Amino acid sequence: MSDDIAAPAEFDIPEGYVALDWRRGFVRQVGPLYRRQAKGAYTMGFRVEDHHTNGMTNAHGGMLMTFADMAWGHIVSVETSSYWVTVRLTLDFLSSARIGDWVEGGGEVLSSEDALYIIRGRIWCGDRTLITGTGVFKPIQRRDPRPGEKAFQAPSG
Amino acid sequence: MSDDIAAPAEFDIPEGYVALDWRRGFVRQVGPLYRRQAKGAYTMGFRVEDHHTNGMTNAHGGMLMTFADMAWGHIVSVETSSYWVTVRLTLDFLSSARIGDWVEGGGEVLSSEDALYIIRGRIWCGDRTLITGTGVFKPIQRRDPRPGEKAFQAPSG
Repeated sequence: MSDDIAAPAEFDIPEGYVALDWRRGFVRQVGPLYRRQAKGAYTMGFRVEDHHTNGMTNAHGGMLMTFADMAWGHIVSVETSSYWVTVRLTLDFLSSARIGDWVEGGGEVLSSEDALYIIRGRIWCGDRTLITGTGVFKPIQRRDPRPGEKAFQAPSG
Repeated sequence: MSDDIAAPAEFDIPEGYVALDWRRGFVRQVGPLYRRQAKGAYTMGFRVEDHHTNGMTNAHGGMLMTFADMAWGHIVSVETSSYWVTVRLTLDFLSSARIGDWVEGGGEVLSSEDALYIIRGRIWCGDRTLITGTGVFKPIQRRDPRPGEKAFQAPSG
């Protein structure tokens, strides 16, 4: 399937964004995705390429939902250093993204009672909101903290 | 990215399912997907392969949502022979699917008032329900009817 994948979108990535290092599975298949920390919160981003598009050459709804799930659920990773599962997602599609658009996403914690994280999230492209929604995520298993997560401590020399 | 894609899942596809002919874009990237007509209604299916998985080697939520969007929205294609967009999706994740699982999906029209299709849908694996949810889809542009759609007429000799 490599013949219709454009060159890696290393070009023209907004300052501060770093590529996520997914080497296998679905996220590699639909990547590359990027992450940026600013003011203590993360946003994620990706450039819409041909392999993200639907029959109208807009970003496919499935790609935008995949991205929303990751960008919103990432907050649970940062807060808890856990593997997590998605319990419920509600997404309102307001606008579409075209090939070449730089799409960003992020969210905020509304509640973390009863070991369920309720995240209000948004996906946007410049000034234009593409999706608003709410995600319910459940941490299921602690793992070693990773760089950028609250529990991460840089190894001492 | 071709090196971590398993051989096409042409093996062991349940009887009656036919591969969807997507040659580009996101659906090619996340495929192969299959479709079957039974009792006048379509279901869609796919076999979970490595390139569909998350870090726990279950089907990634993004893949299941992509599949739900297509399996539920496909009803709008069959009914209207139109391009359509997704307006809202609500998805409840009840169980996960593992590598090798055959996942199926379908839905029923709750309403088609005001040019909005409200579809109640389900994604399952054997007896196990993976996702239930509701999709709101809007037909936006008529196109030529395709085989299997209500308006399709086989060309006469």
